Amino acid sequence: MGTGNTMSVEAADAPPDRESQTTETARLEAFSDGVFAVAITLLALDLGVPAADSLKHYNNHLAGALLHNWPHYLAYLLSFLTILIMWVNHHSIFRFIRRSDHRFLLLNGLLLMVITTIPFATGLLAEYLQDYLQNHGPENWRVAQVVYSGISLMMALVYNYMWRYASTRGRLLDPEANQQLVQSVTKQFRFGPALYLIVFVLAFFSPVVSLALCILLALFYALPSTITRALST
Amino acid sequence: MGTGNTMSVEAADAPPDRESQTTETARLEAFSDGVFAVAITLLALDLGVPAADSLKHYNNHLAGALLHNWPHYLAYLLSFLTILIMWVNHHSIFRFIRRSDHRFLLLNGLLLMVITTIPFATGLLAEYLQDYLQNHGPENWRVAQVVYSGISLMMALVYNYMWRYASTRGRLLDPEANQQLVQSVTKQFRFGPALYLIVFVLAFFSPVVSLALCILLALFYALPSTITRALST
Amino acid sequence: MGTGNTMSVEAADAPPDRESQTTETARLEAFSDGVFAVAITLLALDLGVPAADSLKHYNNHLAGALLHNWPHYLAYLLSFLTILIMWVNHHSIFRFIRRSDHRFLLLNGLLLMVITTIPFATGLLAEYLQDYLQNHGPENWRVAQVVYSGISLMMALVYNYMWRYASTRGRLLDPEANQQLVQSVTKQFRFGPALYLIVFVLAFFSPVVSLALCILLALFYALPSTITRALST
Amino acid sequence: MGTGNTMSVEAADAPPDRESQTTETARLEAFSDGVFAVAITLLALDLGVPAADSLKHYNNHLAGALLHNWPHYLAYLLSFLTILIMWVNHHSIFRFIRRSDHRFLLLNGLLLMVITTIPFATGLLAEYLQDYLQNHGPENWRVAQVVYSGISLMMALVYNYMWRYASTRGRLLDPEANQQLVQSVTKQFRFGPALYLIVFVLAFFSPVVSLALCILLALFYALPSTITRALST
Repeated sequence: MGTGNTMSVEAADAPPDRESQTTETARLEAFSDGVFAVAITLLALDLGVPAADSLKHYNNHLAGALLHNWPHYLAYLLSFLTILIMWVNHHSIFRFIRRSDHRFLLLNGLLLMVITTIPFATGLLAEYLQDYLQNHGPENWRVAQVVYSGISLMMALVYNYMWRYASTRGRLLDPEANQQLVQSVTKQFRFGPALYLIVFVLAFFSPVVSLALCILLALFYALPSTITRALST
Repeated sequence: MGTGNTMSVEAADAPPDRESQTTETARLEAFSDGVFAVAITLLALDLGVPAADSLKHYNNHLAGALLHNWPHYLAYLLSFLTILIMWVNHHSIFRFIRRSDHRFLLLNGLLLMVITTIPFATGLLAEYLQDYLQNHGPENWRVAQVVYSGISLMMALVYNYMWRYASTRGRLLDPEANQQLVQSVTKQFRFGPALYLIVFVLAFFSPVVSLALCILLALFYALPSTITRALST
Repeated sequence: MGTGNTMSVEAADAPPDRESQTTETARLEAFSDGVFAVAITLLALDLGVPAADSLKHYNNHLAGALLHNWPHYLAYLLSFLTILIMWVNHHSIFRFIRRSDHRFLLLNGLLLMVITTIPFATGLLAEYLQDYLQNHGPENWRVAQVVYSGISLMMALVYNYMWRYASTRGRLLDPEANQQLVQSVTKQFRFGPALYLIVFVLAFFSPVVSLALCILLALFYALPSTITRALST
Repeated sequence: MGTGNTMSVEAADAPPDRESQTTETARLEAFSDGVFAVAITLLALDLGVPAADSLKHYNNHLAGALLHNWPHYLAYLLSFLTILIMWVNHHSIFRFIRRSDHRFLLLNGLLLMVITTIPFATGLLAEYLQDYLQNHGPENWRVAQVVYSGISLMMALVYNYMWRYASTRGRLLDPEANQQLVQSVTKQFRFGPALYLIVFVLAFFSPVVSLALCILLALFYALPSTITRALST
């Protein structure tokens, strides 16, 4: 009890026993799943139903108004796929994690913060891509693409750091986790930050190339093992 | 370790042991439940409280303004029932599924994407049914009904493919699942795509018939076993 | 297999074994919790931040604008308490329920539908109570209170029917559930429909009395056991 | 059965057996996690995509419009961190709690109510900090800061009371909980109410000092153990 005073916060972090540890990551995963689920569903609010009164700009044709909104649908598809991949990644790393600590909770919180800003960045991208297509200059679209790719870069960095923090010397991993699988996750995350740094830098020079790369990377992260599997089935 | 490089993504997909498999579908179900719950609740945002200032169009009668909004309530009821049935279906198929793989995660993601667009399609349908009833031509309502029934068709197709992918040669099923029950699910899903294809094609010719069939199909999928059960109680 | 065709839907409903039964109500509860959580949080969207530009109506005083919005805060408090009580009730009845069937899933879905319309009814009530206080006639407030109390009545009816369906001859209950506790829940739900019918009918004659009763009933359902317990501590 | 009538509500609260107790706090935690997840994600709705049409106030520069919105980003960061800390606290205290009763459910409901108003208070703070920076007087910003810090004070008070209620004579705690850890949580919560009372009172005199203290307290609650741990690693 002599050291009770200085250890207070530390102690409160330490899980009392093995069973509570399982509960601990279970609630962390449940809370994170909730944030992922809300964020991915809120994306659709940006699809935007054109008001009947506003159709006069389109000769009163709803089809025209919907087609005109294609940047919103493209941004929606890209961001939905991005959040889905982030959820799959989260899922992948938590399969090996058995413990948590205060710093890891904060890192996970930082990740969730970035996730919750994706609907904002998506709306920004869609609004200013559409604006650019109406013969305005590319400056504002460039700003929107810088924000969008900057958020993607932050996600890659935070995931990378989270995994490195959790896996270094097996800090938070299940001691019985298959080392080969752990290393394959490490490999999988290795190139994300560098790739998204390129996408981010490119946004300042050519928003269209940066956006195209964002789309290609999302497809690349979503599809490969499907293709591999399809070939091996 | 020799094949470690080429198997990395594959390996990361393979669950380490039986216990993790349970956890894997558990989180997939929890995340999906979250998306279903948010989407079904967001539907109600379209009910729309008429602003007190806007009542002058209705001789200052709130009751008139609310009655005028009946297409929004109809669309809400239909879409709520639709998402509820989709959740029951999801629930039904996951009772037999014990494992997951990357392609199945993506298929489930595709399904969730379609689910999250239902509030958008619902708002579109309500807005343009209401517009049509105010003596405008049926063209825009037709477009809205094409979008709405197209999304219903996509749901039927994705569910059908998901179940076929999971159940073919028992790929992702619990090996001890009752084969008769598995086949009854297969039968249950068999006609969905064809029926919704008819609804979708009809939308181009007669939005009112297509909408009526959407309602009938939703009631049909919701009610039969209740009726059967009521008779057998 | 001879009867396989006619039993298909029935069969798909029947849980394969005891373990799946637990999973079945678990997912039903998780999905319902999600809807409750989203609906209760969306209520706060109606609190409404007054735009800085709109303060000219209040001599540029934010405090005045906020005070003027008190009907929104009152409606928020009432509806938050109502949804919370509904969640506690849901929780109470599911403690005894071990199985589910198609009809019960639909009844639960109907309950969730009513829950998701509460934010709409809340906004309506707040908007037209505020409108009435600005020296407009009570007609529109009456309509809003009829809608609000009608939704409360529906909740009471659906809960009552759900519990009666589940508990009659122990249909869906845990066979080992304490019969005395089961009967106490039955007693607890007995008077809800009648009380809310009175509140609903009163709304047509006196919205203020109907609203006051809504508040008293919510407090009554929330507080009694606390008071009892406080006295017995 | 003689006392059945008077004990009805009490009895319905009493969990039938040990296993149900675990289920009881599990659902309470799941529901609370849902509310935390929705509230923390809804915060981002206030980030606000500037409409392309509205950029004329900023010489048509999106970057200028975004920079002008910095109070919204600051308020978002502060509130996200606040809700995250509240979730971590919730998590911390529920690690020791094994039972629940009606009063504790209500206290938890009160906490969730305060949590759901944070997006409102955040929007208010951002709107009127921005308004103040456009050379308007500080009166409205002061009101917004009073509301914001008042909500923070309420959170501290409710948490403190919840923990005291649960832990006094081990009322709701796991009997096997480590007493030293329990006391460390008690210590951790001890100063919150007093600190937030100071922040609240200061808001009436100097909104900028009160806001600065809010930020410092959030960082203090988020960071210390990380720093301690970093030093001890």
